[in-house]
Amino acid sequence: MSEEKQSDLGITVKKNENFSEWYVQIIRKAELADYAKVKGFTVVMPYGYSIWEKIRDYLDSKFKETGHKNAYFPSLIPESLLGKEAEHFSGFTPEVFWVTHAGNSELGERLATRPTSETIAYDSYSKWIKSWRDLPLLLNFWNSVLRAEITGTKPFIRTSEFLWQEGHTVHATQEETDEEVMRMLNVYKEFVENILAVPAMTGKKSESEKFVGALYTMTLEGLMPDGKALQMGTSHNLGQNFSKSFEIKFIGKDEKEHFAWQASWGVSWRLIGAIVMVHGDDKGLILPPKIAPIEAVIVPIFYSDSDKEVVLQKIEDISQLLSNKGMSVYADTREQYTPGWKFNEWELKGVPLRIEIGPRDIKNKKITIVRRDTFEKLEVEEKLIYQETKRISEDIQGNLFKKAKDFMESHTTEVENYEDFKKVLDEKGGFLKVFWCSKQECEEKIKDETGATIRLLSEEQKITSNCIYCGEKALTEAFFAKAY
Amino acid sequence: MSEEKQSDLGITVKKNENFSEWYVQIIRKAELADYAKVKGFTVVMPYGYSIWEKIRDYLDSKFKETGHKNAYFPSLIPESLLGKEAEHFSGFTPEVFWVTHAGNSELGERLATRPTSETIAYDSYSKWIKSWRDLPLLLNFWNSVLRAEITGTKPFIRTSEFLWQEGHTVHATQEETDEEVMRMLNVYKEFVENILAVPAMTGKKSESEKFVGALYTMTLEGLMPDGKALQMGTSHNLGQNFSKSFEIKFIGKDEKEHFAWQASWGVSWRLIGAIVMVHGDDKGLILPPKIAPIEAVIVPIFYSDSDKEVVLQKIEDISQLLSNKGMSVYADTREQYTPGWKFNEWELKGVPLRIEIGPRDIKNKKITIVRRDTFEKLEVEEKLIYQETKRISEDIQGNLFKKAKDFMESHTTEVENYEDFKKVLDEKGGFLKVFWCSKQECEEKIKDETGATIRLLSEEQKITSNCIYCGEKALTEAFFAKAY
Repeated sequence: MSEEKQSDLGITVKKNENFSEWYVQIIRKAELADYAKVKGFTVVMPYGYSIWEKIRDYLDSKFKETGHKNAYFPSLIPESLLGKEAEHFSGFTPEVFWVTHAGNSELGERLATRPTSETIAYDSYSKWIKSWRDLPLLLNFWNSVLRAEITGTKPFIRTSEFLWQEGHTVHATQEETDEEVMRMLNVYKEFVENILAVPAMTGKKSESEKFVGALYTMTLEGLMPDGKALQMGTSHNLGQNFSKSFEIKFIGKDEKEHFAWQASWGVSWRLIGAIVMVHGDDKGLILPPKIAPIEAVIVPIFYSDSDKEVVLQKIEDISQLLSNKGMSVYADTREQYTPGWKFNEWELKGVPLRIEIGPRDIKNKKITIVRRDTFEKLEVEEKLIYQETKRISEDIQGNLFKKAKDFMESHTTEVENYEDFKKVLDEKGGFLKVFWCSKQECEEKIKDETGATIRLLSEEQKITSNCIYCGEKALTEAFFAKAY
Repeated sequence: MSEEKQSDLGITVKKNENFSEWYVQIIRKAELADYAKVKGFTVVMPYGYSIWEKIRDYLDSKFKETGHKNAYFPSLIPESLLGKEAEHFSGFTPEVFWVTHAGNSELGERLATRPTSETIAYDSYSKWIKSWRDLPLLLNFWNSVLRAEITGTKPFIRTSEFLWQEGHTVHATQEETDEEVMRMLNVYKEFVENILAVPAMTGKKSESEKFVGALYTMTLEGLMPDGKALQMGTSHNLGQNFSKSFEIKFIGKDEKEHFAWQASWGVSWRLIGAIVMVHGDDKGLILPPKIAPIEAVIVPIFYSDSDKEVVLQKIEDISQLLSNKGMSVYADTREQYTPGWKFNEWELKGVPLRIEIGPRDIKNKKITIVRRDTFEKLEVEEKLIYQETKRISEDIQGNLFKKAKDFMESHTTEVENYEDFKKVLDEKGGFLKVFWCSKQECEEKIKDETGATIRLLSEEQKITSNCIYCGEKALTEAFFAKAY
């Protein structure tokens, strides 16, 4: 392949010059996803899907460890059922896709393609739950949901269909429900920080930003390199709103009837978008080793047939050794591409470690490892290959997290007046930590005037200043940001 | 719980007296699935879903071993795309659910809720495939599909929405495509026979029964205890039909342009229905150990508090021991139910092995194991618990398969004339092995007059008699049966 063609395959814009175009190029050129025939929909390609599989498998094991089981509910929901909780319905109805016909027959009642499963699940829950013995009910669903997105669609970040998980649990008491909400928020936080290497802030949503129908919503927010926040997951205490609409009642140990308490929580393939944005560079994707479908790629380097045999045998041995130790390695022995072409491809695809093996390395009993995050080239003793690969891999994981965390911290600014607020938002972006009177009017005005919304309310209880907007008594500390 | 209530929980009809009602009772009472709000749709409950997870995980590992990767395509398909291959479209259009509105806006073009993904996938494939280097393309999708089923709906067997996998592969030659079709058919056969303990016949579908748009269809057929066949999986050679409609072309090694060859193959949650029907008995479900989410349940038996402590400790030890060896065991230490109640529940749910532990057993260093398939009670040495559990588990797996295989063999009848055909079909059901002239007219007449269809064509080449219907020269051997 000519040099010219080669460069076409790479990313042609710089991350810090045109972030939006850079993102879309990564998605397409690293073969994570492709656009589908219908606007707003995406096709997740095998490489992108393998990242989703790792996310799913990891979280699923955590859900099961915390006592949850999976189930499947229909993807079509009758309009009457979707409308049973009024506030919830009004929140979703503008973006619902409606099925009106089956074959040539018009349906008696319109069916919504699932925008979320509260209503259809809780209809069943009301039949299943009779007694305190049936509680807690701890279910989760892995499925796809559809919400018509007209503007600002972006692969993985905002699409008319996305894959996600939605946990829907039922409890006897408010206290247990609060515990569940925090337990799952912490599962998410631990996952995004330790596995995806994406730092997250957690806190409560304001009344206007909470989930429609919830008592309160806890959120997990990340900060993207363009200074915009990304909501990565939410965990809701639904109170008794839905249990009252859906008659989810149980006979308690006190032999009296009670409405149940409910929680729901979810994350979606949006997490893939977060990984891309936070870690990628001008060369392409950078995957944290713990979520990379391929942790290390091995590239043979030889120029003669006699070398070929020796090199391929060594690659086979090293590949086997690392696989046996539980690493996911891929030996790229394709003959139609040059080593240079392969280097570029795997850099674009963000494989954390590249292992190069050539005849000289074999003679010297050395192996060359190249880090994707820093491009640092390390020569390691062949006999130490596993220990060194593992050490470097862990170092990359830590380095990516630290870099992202430093960015988030340096882009979280405490501001004391509205002029500074606007200035910092314009010049630097990121999270703006302010005091707020808790009145929706001020929140709304700030949003209209600056585009920033409250991402979360801080747990900080010490109020040292007045509301950033109206100057009246502040009741809480809030983190504002522009957001996806 | 009173004895009366207890019996309500169990299956109240006999399998050989009212098979259809028996089936529905198992589905509901073993908590595999529940009816949803919309007719023809089901909710898969956690216990049923955990069987699906085992099916999915096992098959997924086999797909990956054979070089396939997963991807995700949108669940909504524009009408124009669905209509691109005319035969395919006419086959699916009567049962398609149509989305006509998003929010309050009417869509410019109707969108079908995915009845199968050929059209939307191949639209992308045509963009992705350019050269022989891009082949073979070996993808699989785990998703749900919707097909409006008006009559004869039955949980897992025929529903308006079902979970399945659909493999869609692209090859350079017809020969490679034939190989793929057989490879995946064999993956299915090995799976249903060795893991689900359900014997299967395989063969080619007749022209009228093949997949709409395929060159030919290979099928995997099981025989249910009511004498009806169940199509459990199919593997199609799509020829170049779709590649011509969708312009899936590649430049070959010969530097000329060729239309690609394609295969597709799938199984669905229908396999759960097969397990239920084939193995269950009057007491409930019987799960083959290799697919059972719980392979062994351990039930403590004690009547005093002093015994309780000793028994629970022993259960903890045994449970740990078996888990460490890779068995999925569940220690049912719930205090609100009696041992008898638990026995009934786990029999209903088909757990293959029940381990009973009481103070007398502990004193004698013996453990009681009860087989779900035969109810045989075995007393084994405590120190041999793992070896014995494993041995009995394997024996159950083999026994279930043998029983089902004997049934299929004894219900496969070679008939030589149409009178016998009708008589055997009426009195015994099962597969009827006949010679056939290969004319659709005879096939159609037999179907109209008896309700039996050709399930598959035999590979037997020796034709020893004339067509069972018209008496003219037979060209092939065919297996007829009534079918789900």
